[in-house]
Amino acid sequence: MSLVARLERAVPGRVVSDPVGLAPYTADRSGHRAAGRPIAAVEPETVEEVQEVCRIASAEGVPVVTRGAGTGLAGGAIAGPGELVVSLMRMDRILEVSRENRLAVVQPGILNAALNAELAQYGLWWAPDPASRDISTVGGNIAMNAGGLLCAKYGVTREAVLALKVVLIDGRVIDVGHRTVKGVTGYDLCALMIGSEGTLGIVVEATLKLVPIVTGEPVTIGAFFDRLDDAAGAAAEISRRGLVPAILELLDRPSLDCVAAYTGERLNETADAYVLAQCDGPDAERTGAGVAQALREAGGDVRSTTDPAESERLWSLRRNVFPAVEAASGGLLVEDIAVPRDRMVDAFAAIRSIERRYEVSIPTGCHAGDGNLHPVFSYDDGGAVPDRIWEAAGEVFQTALDLGGTLSGEHGIGLLKRRWLADELGDAQFELQRGVKELFDPRGLLNPGKVFAV
Amino acid sequence: MSLVARLERAVPGRVVSDPVGLAPYTADRSGHRAAGRPIAAVEPETVEEVQEVCRIASAEGVPVVTRGAGTGLAGGAIAGPGELVVSLMRMDRILEVSRENRLAVVQPGILNAALNAELAQYGLWWAPDPASRDISTVGGNIAMNAGGLLCAKYGVTREAVLALKVVLIDGRVIDVGHRTVKGVTGYDLCALMIGSEGTLGIVVEATLKLVPIVTGEPVTIGAFFDRLDDAAGAAAEISRRGLVPAILELLDRPSLDCVAAYTGERLNETADAYVLAQCDGPDAERTGAGVAQALREAGGDVRSTTDPAESERLWSLRRNVFPAVEAASGGLLVEDIAVPRDRMVDAFAAIRSIERRYEVSIPTGCHAGDGNLHPVFSYDDGGAVPDRIWEAAGEVFQTALDLGGTLSGEHGIGLLKRRWLADELGDAQFELQRGVKELFDPRGLLNPGKVFAV
Repeated sequence: MSLVARLERAVPGRVVSDPVGLAPYTADRSGHRAAGRPIAAVEPETVEEVQEVCRIASAEGVPVVTRGAGTGLAGGAIAGPGELVVSLMRMDRILEVSRENRLAVVQPGILNAALNAELAQYGLWWAPDPASRDISTVGGNIAMNAGGLLCAKYGVTREAVLALKVVLIDGRVIDVGHRTVKGVTGYDLCALMIGSEGTLGIVVEATLKLVPIVTGEPVTIGAFFDRLDDAAGAAAEISRRGLVPAILELLDRPSLDCVAAYTGERLNETADAYVLAQCDGPDAERTGAGVAQALREAGGDVRSTTDPAESERLWSLRRNVFPAVEAASGGLLVEDIAVPRDRMVDAFAAIRSIERRYEVSIPTGCHAGDGNLHPVFSYDDGGAVPDRIWEAAGEVFQTALDLGGTLSGEHGIGLLKRRWLADELGDAQFELQRGVKELFDPRGLLNPGKVFAV
Repeated sequence: MSLVARLERAVPGRVVSDPVGLAPYTADRSGHRAAGRPIAAVEPETVEEVQEVCRIASAEGVPVVTRGAGTGLAGGAIAGPGELVVSLMRMDRILEVSRENRLAVVQPGILNAALNAELAQYGLWWAPDPASRDISTVGGNIAMNAGGLLCAKYGVTREAVLALKVVLIDGRVIDVGHRTVKGVTGYDLCALMIGSEGTLGIVVEATLKLVPIVTGEPVTIGAFFDRLDDAAGAAAEISRRGLVPAILELLDRPSLDCVAAYTGERLNETADAYVLAQCDGPDAERTGAGVAQALREAGGDVRSTTDPAESERLWSLRRNVFPAVEAASGGLLVEDIAVPRDRMVDAFAAIRSIERRYEVSIPTGCHAGDGNLHPVFSYDDGGAVPDRIWEAAGEVFQTALDLGGTLSGEHGIGLLKRRWLADELGDAQFELQRGVKELFDPRGLLNPGKVFAV
């Protein structure tokens, strides 16, 4: 029996093998595209179906690419020739919400925003908040250990997952983690799965740690700065003073220029940077006042408000950055370094220097609360990222490592950054990480070529 | 050259090989003791010395037991015949405190309380708060993924560690994790090391995630209940209402009896349980009022205070439990299951049933905020834990698993619980965990027999 026929028997009526249906699986939001189409895509609806698909793939030696909504920015869920896609988009149910245990059990295909809309009815919230939350799945968030705007205060995805049900490539199921807040039985394979980018197993169910929804009136603060260094320094100073805003974003002048060109708005033309902060929870007023004062002392032209309309106005600049940058270019490479908060000034200086040397504009927005910078490289042609851009990006990565940071804060390695991974990890750790991969997937059938070159 | 002579050259003047000096390393606080003394103990002061000791141990094929303060409750750091102890107690320095990056870099031998005393001067706090914090090391907390009283609100040790420097058994060093809040470069080997009980490598430096010290007046609440079920149910109800106390402890009647006998105090004699709660931070007053109301509605006789002296009085009962239980018996086995919050009532019912069937008193205190129960088995003779006690404990473990919980919330597996580990993990995960061990330590030289039987 052919592979497709076997799959059709395992997942009846939910095997895609026509070119049009398969085309979307060859790309994600990184701009990268596979050289050709995968063999087929299956859309299982149950754990048992995923198990059976894995057994078939193992028997046939066919590589498996697990797929959520395909919103990744590192090429982590792109499938090409000879590969089989397992799309989890039909496994999108909420299996349980428990206020007593402050957890939800969900299937991986549910969208982050859809889950949170449902949880809101229980007064609960799943904190991971990637910019993609309206269009990305919980399973995808787990696969990439997604970050977002709120991480300095509310943590990353790893801190918001209690347990996972995982199908191994041979079709067996493991339950890792605990349904309880505490649990120390052996190695933390649950944390190991989070951020593993589909290379160790297929997450088919997740027990999520929830928090009570944040109540009260948030304080929103916007501030223009004449000097970016002052703005970046203020972010470190806010931390030094023990203040914890929920959101602290920073935009540089090239980002502001893109927005001005995009919206036709006349932004503060002498400003070199814009900072947007939001403070929430029972301490919002005190924290907001402290943040506003720190920004003002650092030279910011500060506006602070609790009025929703005025808050929205302060937000709009930040919201428009990516649409603006996208509109201005043929192709984009959105990068994702993180550095210690007190090295952001140095990171921006290095980016400005790289801009000059490569004669390329690199508008950079920044989750300043946690030192996560997104330098955006645009190029005219909409095709593959040009070598010159990769060279410039390579210098940005090296800068991050030199400053004690990392080459990916939240987007992951995928296809696009694997050539730099060993530079960060060092040989001994790189070797151990490859050993972990081999332990879970000895034949290299799970998302081959992602994270590690084959 | 003899092993001791080689060690003496690597760690001059800091090799212990006399029987008196070695005796403490044969036990921890679990009551368990090794059958004999280890070969030697070394007390390195630098990373390089640890590396050299590992190289010697590897060359000689000598097993290495890494040791902090020896306060463990699962036999995880006990060393016996043929083994070499690496004590990290001399590596106790704080290398860096950064308010800007809200982190500290420390050596593993520093005591948790000593670190926090120093951090307080910076307005910062490392949240892991095991009951042993005055006498246990940060390295030990990391090795066991220590919990404590504050975990439902402030998380466990894993959530408070950013990065680790680890010496592998062959003497190589890896740096795992990130200095930044975010970082997604490959597998999370930092989380994998946390809770690995000295079986994968030796942690020689830790970058700790700090939080601003909690300010404001805490609200302390004590409540006696006529029925334990009402008290345990109230804990789940508090969570259901979206209230997050910092501390929520529950003591059962056998615990109260021990305290009454120990202090001579006449406690509320009709009470079946006592609940102690503490609410802190900017929301302390509102949360405290909500918690007090929930306890009252559940039938509790509630006292609530912000007065330090009255607060101390409410606390004293909880503080006296372990000294009281210890004083009442020859030997103790302190157990450590965790169950979902809404199954605590069932867990206590099962413990009462086991008490009757085994004719043994099992006073049980409970971190009710996170469902972590400590059933204490006492026996007359101070020697090894009798088989009958292990049988009763085994039933408690099975109860935890049946209720969707875990056989260890915070004490770990060590020597004492390894025979039940596979019951919780299942065969496929148990096999993968053993594979992880083999990957990091192919010759089985790191803390052999701990977590997994050799």
